[in-house]
Parts: sequence; structure tokens; C-alpha cells
Amino acid sequence: MNSFVYNIPTKVYFGENQLDNLGKELSQFGKRVLLTYGGGSIKKIGLYDKVIAEIQKAGLEVFELSGIEPNPRVDSVREGAKICKEKNIDVLLAVGGGSTIDATKFMAAGAFVEHDVWDFFNEKQAPINKALPIVTILTLSATGSEMDAGGVISNLETKDKYGRVDSHLLPKVSFLDPTNTFTVSPYQTACGTADMLSHIFEVYFNMNQDLYMLDCFMEGLIKTIIKYAPIAMKEPDNYEARANLMWVSSWAINGFINGGKRQAWSCHPMEHELSAIYDITHGLGLAILTPRWMKYCLSENTVSKYVQFATNVFGIDKNQSDMAIAQQGIEKIEEFLFKTLGLKSTFEQVGIKKEDFPHMAKKACKGGVLPGFIPLQQEDIEKIFKMCM
Amino acid sequence: MNSFVYNIPTKVYFGENQLDNLGKELSQFGKRVLLTYGGGSIKKIGLYDKVIAEIQKAGLEVFELSGIEPNPRVDSVREGAKICKEKNIDVLLAVGGGSTIDATKFMAAGAFVEHDVWDFFNEKQAPINKALPIVTILTLSATGSEMDAGGVISNLETKDKYGRVDSHLLPKVSFLDPTNTFTVSPYQTACGTADMLSHIFEVYFNMNQDLYMLDCFMEGLIKTIIKYAPIAMKEPDNYEARANLMWVSSWAINGFINGGKRQAWSCHPMEHELSAIYDITHGLGLAILTPRWMKYCLSENTVSKYVQFATNVFGIDKNQSDMAIAQQGIEKIEEFLFKTLGLKSTFEQVGIKKEDFPHMAKKACKGGVLPGFIPLQQEDIEKIFKMCM
Repeated sequence: MNSFVYNIPTKVYFGENQLDNLGKELSQFGKRVLLTYGGGSIKKIGLYDKVIAEIQKAGLEVFELSGIEPNPRVDSVREGAKICKEKNIDVLLAVGGGSTIDATKFMAAGAFVEHDVWDFFNEKQAPINKALPIVTILTLSATGSEMDAGGVISNLETKDKYGRVDSHLLPKVSFLDPTNTFTVSPYQTACGTADMLSHIFEVYFNMNQDLYMLDCFMEGLIKTIIKYAPIAMKEPDNYEARANLMWVSSWAINGFINGGKRQAWSCHPMEHELSAIYDITHGLGLAILTPRWMKYCLSENTVSKYVQFATNVFGIDKNQSDMAIAQQGIEKIEEFLFKTLGLKSTFEQVGIKKEDFPHMAKKACKGGVLPGFIPLQQEDIEKIFKMCM
Repeated sequence: MNSFVYNIPTKVYFGENQLDNLGKELSQFGKRVLLTYGGGSIKKIGLYDKVIAEIQKAGLEVFELSGIEPNPRVDSVREGAKICKEKNIDVLLAVGGGSTIDATKFMAAGAFVEHDVWDFFNEKQAPINKALPIVTILTLSATGSEMDAGGVISNLETKDKYGRVDSHLLPKVSFLDPTNTFTVSPYQTACGTADMLSHIFEVYFNMNQDLYMLDCFMEGLIKTIIKYAPIAMKEPDNYEARANLMWVSSWAINGFINGGKRQAWSCHPMEHELSAIYDITHGLGLAILTPRWMKYCLSENTVSKYVQFATNVFGIDKNQSDMAIAQQGIEKIEEFLFKTLGLKSTFEQVGIKKEDFPHMAKKACKGGVLPGFIPLQQEDIEKIFKMCM
């Protein structure tokens, strides 16, 4: 069992009617706020006006950067970092989903460097020694960026999509109001759900012994997702469902579930290659990959973890062979992703082509081995991609 | 569903061989350290020498206050606060269990006031506007004081035992090394276990709707306790068992499980009256009270919570009446506390006398109503006490 450091100081205002704390929280960092958001849905739901009102009430000066894309682009990060420098920004306020928050994190880091922000991601791996403070208001339950220290940025020129984690990027304060997710479409709810599930699976499916209490917690998170995602899709303004999904999104990835596990992730790096080239929704790509990856990794060596999963999460009858139990667990997840959530189930359906498999697979494992639940080489990844056709 | 604020910035070094980070962590707060501990068991296990070595390596100046009692006394707090003032202490380092950490918290607050520290607890409820930073090294898994903002102090003169919670008291850094609990006796392990269980029950048994994900988490914590406490008692140096119990102790009370629940506690205030007068181990008092309190609160109005508990934690067969399921859940907990953990099961066995019931009950509800799972008046509490004979 490995040792670990637990350190998640993000303060979270959870629930309705907490926005009157926004001005106070922003003010502790200074007077000049850069407000970042995406395509303008925050205006439609009235959140933009509320945020501006609170900022003005606190006597702060606000600058804006809108139009941050899904699978956020390095160009947006460049623009944000430039504004931070030119306008002497004190604090960034990201209002949106994971894309807006991810991009904002690297603007906050970019404010302190002279080099191009893409150097945080490419082979240079430029150090992040400092970042402006970040406050977030979440509008989509999925990536967990509101309470973690990482983000993923795409470069359309180079067709690269890379993640980076650094403790300086952890939001100082996040506002999680489930009503801000009431207008999230059933499709986006489903994609966000697949993303959360994958965050948990990347840690849960692991053969290194770790804390049982964390396995129990992860099983609880998965059960919560399975219970509430279909409700949120059918009743978009069901507060209970939205609240559970929202708090799960944060705890699926904030680091608590890791404990002493050091395992690298598998499905996320594979999926990043899909959305780098095809710009598909991250959660959709994960949904297609996940059950195939589970099937591919199943063996006599790994079956015990699947048995734990299938019996504890789905209550599969224990009086069967381990392999039979494991397979039923995988079937249950397939059923959930493709029937209950109604997500597309094959690469064909989303237009991903066979000819891209070799170089996507090569990039996913960086030409060597993708470590994880089981180590995957290029040929393994290609096989998993083929299973997705 | 209530809104809430989540804010637990304590940094935790979990696991073996993390003490080389101690000097660095203490140094961020200053040069002058007050080391607090209890009866000297930390010397027997070699921890004292290691701590002193790290402090010296970091070039810090150390002052000591030892002899902090179980059910810690206000006199120790007075003494500690005095040392903080006289020696211009910058940071307190509590090495021990919940008693040492609790007492240290109020020394840290007492350093900034001129009034008697008991005023934090009595009817004056003196404000806590400031406290010196606290670092802890935990040696007993039980109270969760290492990651929460509260503490309980006894006054032998007035026979009072009161708790107080204030965010200034939250430890900045805690070191949780399961090997530091290897020498905890089976009896103390059992008492600590009963304490942790009660922390969870005080929140779990609640009829207000809250986040399902948190109920799942609590059920996982309870299952973890039930699985590992007996192992830790039989094999005191079982790292896996000690590690699970240790991390559960923190998460049972750090505030995460509360979510939006506002419910006051029931068994803890009742128990504080027992140990205020009889100075029995807190966990033992809780163990005796808990199943009786559960029985007393069971009704048609509350039975659904017991059914959830019994089926999810113990897998009790659902094909029975709700009342039958509920009762089997309570029996399972009785069996665990009194047979598996081997704790004494009656007031008689620990010398608590009937004639003290009325005034203990009156104090527990402060002469009015003890709110909680169900509201308890003096006569209810007396009935629960009678059930404990």
C-alpha cells in the first residue's frame, strides 16, 4: 500500500442561492476580474446577469473573454493569458463546464510566463511556478475541473490534445449550483455521465492493493451515477438528480479516490486521440471505448476486480464462475451507456475511420507503452479500436 | 435539500515514512514549536525521538507540554495557552490521539485571549477569532480531530464536558501513519471504533433528504469499520486494517458526510454527561448508548432509514416486514459492538448509577430538547439510560 498526500483546499459553495458569496470571495484576491465563458448559454439561463450583478455589487472591475470552445483550443488560452497581462487581472472567474474551466486554468498560468502557452503541453513541458487565482461557477457536471488541478487543451494546427496537472491550477473557490445544470440537454448529460464513470473506472480497475474504504466510495459513486443520470435525462430540472451528479463529478476526480494508487489512466489518453482528430465530445468517445477496454483487459489475472465490481455495483449473483460474473458486469455497463443513456456505440456511427487507427494508437502510447490497468502497446490499442467499429 | 459549504483545507500526509516532511511543514509557520502529547506512549514507540530529530534538523526551537489526559482537562488547556503566550509560540504540534489534539486546539485559540479558556465552553461562549496554526501526528484512530474543527474539553471542578467547533481550529497539516497505531491495545481499538461508528450514525440516521452519494459513502465507511476493526484487534500490526481505520476516522467527521444535513447529534451529548461524571472512555459510553438509542428512535416514521441501513450495510433479506428488517439491523450492530469488539454492554458493568440519570439527562438536553434524529426530552433520555442498565 503506497503512501500519499491528500491536499484539496478548494472551497465549495454547494446548492442554490449561494451566489451572494461571490463578491466576497473574488474580492479577497483583488479588484480586477477576468470573466471567462463559452458560447453564451450562461446568458440564456440568466446566470450571466446574476454574476455581473454580484461583481458590480462588490465594486470590482470586470473584463470578459467569451467563446471558449468545447475541447478548448490553445488559441483561447493564448488570448486569455494576453488579457491577464494587459489588464493586470487579479483573479479569473470561469463560468461554464470543464472546457471553460480547463482553458481558464492555463490562462491563469500563462499570465506569468513570456513563452507560448502551448509550451505547457508540448515536449518542452514548461514549468508552472505560479498561476492567478481561479474561481469557478460550474454549469455542466462532467470533468470535475471545478475541484481538480488539471486540464486538457487542444491544438488544431498540430492535431494534438494534451492534459497537464499542476497544483497551482486548483480552483480556490467553486460554486456548484445544481439548478445551473437544469438546461443541460439529455445528450450532454449522457456524455458528462460517461466522462464521470470513466474517471472512476480509470482508478477503480487497478490490481494494486489500496484502501478498501476508497473502493467502497467509488462503488457508491458509480451507483449514484447509475441511479440519477437517467432521471436527470428524463426530468432535466430534478434537483436531487442534478445535485447528486454534480457532487459526484467533483469527487470522481479531485484526487480523494486515488489514495495511494499510482496507476496511469488508459481510456482518457486513447480518447484524447479521437477527439484531437475528430473533435467529438470527450464523454461520447469514452463511452464507446470503455466497455471494449474492459473486455480487452479481462483475464485470469484481472478477473477478481471485475467480480468485485459486478457484485458490489450491480448485485450480480455470486454463484457463477468468476468469468461469467465479470462478463455480466461489462454487459451491464454496456447496457447503461448505450441503452439507458442512449449514446452511440461504435466508431462507425460517429465517423471515426479505420485508417486513422495506427497513428492514433501510436500517439496514445507515445510509441511505447500506455501504462494503466494493464499495459497497452500500439497493437493492443489498435485492437481495442477495432473492437469499437 | 439544503445548501452547504465544503471547506476542508487540512493537508494530510498519509502512510509510512512521511515524517521527513514535518520540518518543512512546521517551518512555514515560524521557528518556535510547542510539542504537546499525552502520557508518554509516543516515547515507547520511538515516535518522540523521530519527531524531535525532524524538528532539530529543521533548526526549530521546541517547547514541550506532556501529560495531556484522556477526556482532556481544561487545566491542560490553560497551561498550554500560557506557554504559547510566554514563549511566543508560532505553531503547535500535537502528537497523540483525539484528546491531545483537542486540547491543543484550544491552547492555540487561548494564546490570543486574556480571559480564562473555559469561557470558550461555558455559557459565555467567548468568540474564537484567531488561533495559532496546528499540526498533528495521529496515534489513535477515533475522534477525527486530526481533520476537523472541533474538540471536547472536561472541567473536573464543575463536572462539565463541552464541545466547541470553530474553523480556526482546523489543523493545517496532519500526519497519518498507520504504523503509529500498531501499539494501540485491542480495547482502545474497540473504543475508537465505537466512536467512529457513532460519528457516522449521528449523521446517517436522519430523515431529511440529502445526497444519496453521501449515504452510499457512509455505508462504505461502516462496512470498512466492520471489516477491519476485528482484524486490527487480532493483528495489531496489520497495516491494511490500521490504514483503513485511520482514514475512516478522519472522513467520519471532517464534515464531508454532512452535506446539507443540519441535524444535531444525539448520542454524543448524552455520552458527554456519562464521561463528565464517571470519566469512562468516550467510545465505550457511546457503544453502550448507541443500540439503545437506535431502538428508542425506531418507529413507523423512521423505519425506512433503518431498512436502508440494514439492507445496504448487512445485506439483511428484504423479504420481511420493515420493522423486522430494522430490528435485525440493530441486532447486528449490538452483536458487533458487544461480541465482535467485546465491549461492555451495560451501565452496570461500568459502574454508572441510576441515581445520576435525572441530572445527567437534564444536562444532556440542557433542560429542554435535545434535537437530533428524533427530538429527545429529559424523560426520553432517562428512558434510554434505563435501557442501558
